[in-house]
Amino acid sequence: MLEELKERVYRANMMLPENKLVISTWGNVSEIDRKKGLFAIKPSGVAYEDLSPDKMVVCDLKGNIVEGSLKPSSDMPTHLEIYKNFSNANAVVHTHSRWATIWAQAGKSISAYGTTHADYFYGAIPVTRKMTDEEIVSEYERNTGRVIVETFVSHRTSPSRMNACLVHSHGPFLWGDDAISAVEKAVILEEIAFMAWHTEMLAYKKETTTLKMQQQLLDKHFFRKHGDNAYYGQQG
Amino acid sequence: MLEELKERVYRANMMLPENKLVISTWGNVSEIDRKKGLFAIKPSGVAYEDLSPDKMVVCDLKGNIVEGSLKPSSDMPTHLEIYKNFSNANAVVHTHSRWATIWAQAGKSISAYGTTHADYFYGAIPVTRKMTDEEIVSEYERNTGRVIVETFVSHRTSPSRMNACLVHSHGPFLWGDDAISAVEKAVILEEIAFMAWHTEMLAYKKETTTLKMQQQLLDKHFFRKHGDNAYYGQQG
Amino acid sequence: MLEELKERVYRANMMLPENKLVISTWGNVSEIDRKKGLFAIKPSGVAYEDLSPDKMVVCDLKGNIVEGSLKPSSDMPTHLEIYKNFSNANAVVHTHSRWATIWAQAGKSISAYGTTHADYFYGAIPVTRKMTDEEIVSEYERNTGRVIVETFVSHRTSPSRMNACLVHSHGPFLWGDDAISAVEKAVILEEIAFMAWHTEMLAYKKETTTLKMQQQLLDKHFFRKHGDNAYYGQQG
Amino acid sequence: MLEELKERVYRANMMLPENKLVISTWGNVSEIDRKKGLFAIKPSGVAYEDLSPDKMVVCDLKGNIVEGSLKPSSDMPTHLEIYKNFSNANAVVHTHSRWATIWAQAGKSISAYGTTHADYFYGAIPVTRKMTDEEIVSEYERNTGRVIVETFVSHRTSPSRMNACLVHSHGPFLWGDDAISAVEKAVILEEIAFMAWHTEMLAYKKETTTLKMQQQLLDKHFFRKHGDNAYYGQQG
Repeated sequence: MLEELKERVYRANMMLPENKLVISTWGNVSEIDRKKGLFAIKPSGVAYEDLSPDKMVVCDLKGNIVEGSLKPSSDMPTHLEIYKNFSNANAVVHTHSRWATIWAQAGKSISAYGTTHADYFYGAIPVTRKMTDEEIVSEYERNTGRVIVETFVSHRTSPSRMNACLVHSHGPFLWGDDAISAVEKAVILEEIAFMAWHTEMLAYKKETTTLKMQQQLLDKHFFRKHGDNAYYGQQG
Repeated sequence: MLEELKERVYRANMMLPENKLVISTWGNVSEIDRKKGLFAIKPSGVAYEDLSPDKMVVCDLKGNIVEGSLKPSSDMPTHLEIYKNFSNANAVVHTHSRWATIWAQAGKSISAYGTTHADYFYGAIPVTRKMTDEEIVSEYERNTGRVIVETFVSHRTSPSRMNACLVHSHGPFLWGDDAISAVEKAVILEEIAFMAWHTEMLAYKKETTTLKMQQQLLDKHFFRKHGDNAYYGQQG
Repeated sequence: MLEELKERVYRANMMLPENKLVISTWGNVSEIDRKKGLFAIKPSGVAYEDLSPDKMVVCDLKGNIVEGSLKPSSDMPTHLEIYKNFSNANAVVHTHSRWATIWAQAGKSISAYGTTHADYFYGAIPVTRKMTDEEIVSEYERNTGRVIVETFVSHRTSPSRMNACLVHSHGPFLWGDDAISAVEKAVILEEIAFMAWHTEMLAYKKETTTLKMQQQLLDKHFFRKHGDNAYYGQQG
Repeated sequence: MLEELKERVYRANMMLPENKLVISTWGNVSEIDRKKGLFAIKPSGVAYEDLSPDKMVVCDLKGNIVEGSLKPSSDMPTHLEIYKNFSNANAVVHTHSRWATIWAQAGKSISAYGTTHADYFYGAIPVTRKMTDEEIVSEYERNTGRVIVETFVSHRTSPSRMNACLVHSHGPFLWGDDAISAVEKAVILEEIAFMAWHTEMLAYKKETTTLKMQQQLLDKHFFRKHGDNAYYGQQG
């Protein structure tokens, strides 16, 4: 059943290592068929090179496995909570991609620092609060989804204008129209997280004025390559 | 028309992903035929793998499309302003390349810190002021070009000795003799922006003196590999 | 003798440059046959492209060479100490991989900052104390092993829940069930060390609030690509 | 003449882009035949893909071209000064490699922070003083060599135990027994410069203690993958 969906979910999962968003068996992608109320997701702990479309696990919205001989990703209940609460989420992707995870580990939302960010995410990419010990001990993965939903509700953030959330001390979850475009957005989140990290470091550093190179040296190098008296290269 | 020009503009655009200056559909290159007053530019939002020379859009200096079935890059009016105001600019390239964009997002010009910089750019690579709300709401892309021009006029910077400008909160624009060499300069800007970022961080950090390794350990490792009593490797 | 073991040790050593954990001849992997009390290890200072299974050197637990025409890695006595003291260590890997080495050089243990870390290492990855001059001058490589063991004993750390140690001013040593899985863990340590470095930098930086981009510019870029009035791309 | 030497110098130059030590036409390698008093060096400003052994330029120790139709690298007089003053230097390599150049631009020597450094360089890798305006205006490239020599003389540093020098605001020069091994050392310098940069940043940052993840979350993730109650993967 859902052969086309499973094929697409398979391909989207394979895009994670191809785009260097994951190493080892980290990360997982799912997509839902809203009419049938069923979603396909990566199996737990299987190496990417061993995946195939038929190994995708199909679950219903109660978390029951309805097709597949493998266990679904241990993060399946998190996907489930997102599907139940965000009506625009037809696919969910979770990675431990380096730069988004660094922000999640620091417990910081990613502020919008430029137009690259603004082209894709409407405002700061939120980070959840820390989970309580109770939330961690019992129903941990489901509570991970709940704390994502809570973050959007409490900040009145629209999950259609903001398709990503950083889970504190963990990593990013994203959602989208389908599995492929959700992963594409995860690639872009990574680039934006990289640039925001370096923007903050640069902006907040203390400055002195002694670093600039000498004017004479600037002149020497520029004019030995450019203009009438240039002598670099084979031109003269 | 302008087949040779479109071919070169196509190739220059393809150099952007090849040199990892852009991901997704980011970035665009154009080149002008000054005699005819026409320039060819990348179409808007088309994937790089789907580009071909005949998909380049030809525009006149009023911004009218004179050839091509696709819409030009949304940044076309910015290219136009540069062509109208900088007589040495025969090609324009715009990217969201990581390191130049980081400086743009931090709102900082890139000071000349070394001879690599001086070989290509005569002084600090300028950053524009922030645009006003009015400039953003109406004619945004054209005003982006205007604020670049204003930056050069107000600082009395020569656009022939300085072929690049960072647009605040956005990213770099560069220009040159032709589309290919303009992209080559964008590659070099990225390298210079990378090195300047790390130079500033290193130079401005507070220092202590407790970090150096022990002299005894330095001796041990150097002399177990070098000199008469070396025992590393298969030499003895 | 031990052909299967030597083959596996060979392959594990080759995984070091393949995973960019080492350059030049840096790094070494060994694995022990606990029943026979013999372990196979990389020869000293041989280029990776010149290695083959039969060049692996077999040693006993007194450090004597029992098979092989080459000298074993100069770090062999460190491996030996780990085998003698950590009963769960059936394989040992040592690299100068960039990020783990950076922490070792700074003399800092790697705190657990997120679930990626927690999935593999139970708590902070410890760093040894500096070695004394006496320990460096005489039996240096064996004392390197001793200081690793001391670190675990003094902190009551379990070498089965924590399979890695940073040697101060030097680099990481890891152990595991077999040579292949020990190298896989070294790959993961490197990723965790990378993320922890950037997490600390981000978390400890001083903040100001002037960096965020203008709301107007955020609106402009988001809505020129998304929603009813979008004009980016070929959609309208 | 010197066919074997030119072949080796050619190959060593090609190793620069292969090892990502240079982009564009940056960098140059030479090697000397001490008996004949002649050295072969890369021509100035020629693209690496257009190089061949016969394009190497042969010069004598007065800087005269004795073979070759192209102009030698503009840095040739710097090589010359090194050959004349450092008797152990039989090959010279100059790059603008990222990490060594960052230290040169910051005007800082690279302290020995670990055994990786100690395996190759005996102590801090020195940086020259800034050159005077007079030294820059006249005989700039020759004075670049002189300031390298002065750095070693004034610090009583042995050019045989320390084969590298950073020229202030410029980049690294290295020397060695032959062109190939000099470039290999340039690769290692780059790795060491990378690690030293990140070691300093990590060591000198201010710390707080609020960043560590929750113990409960550490437990959850470690034990859902490891031990009797693990439920990650397909094991149970």
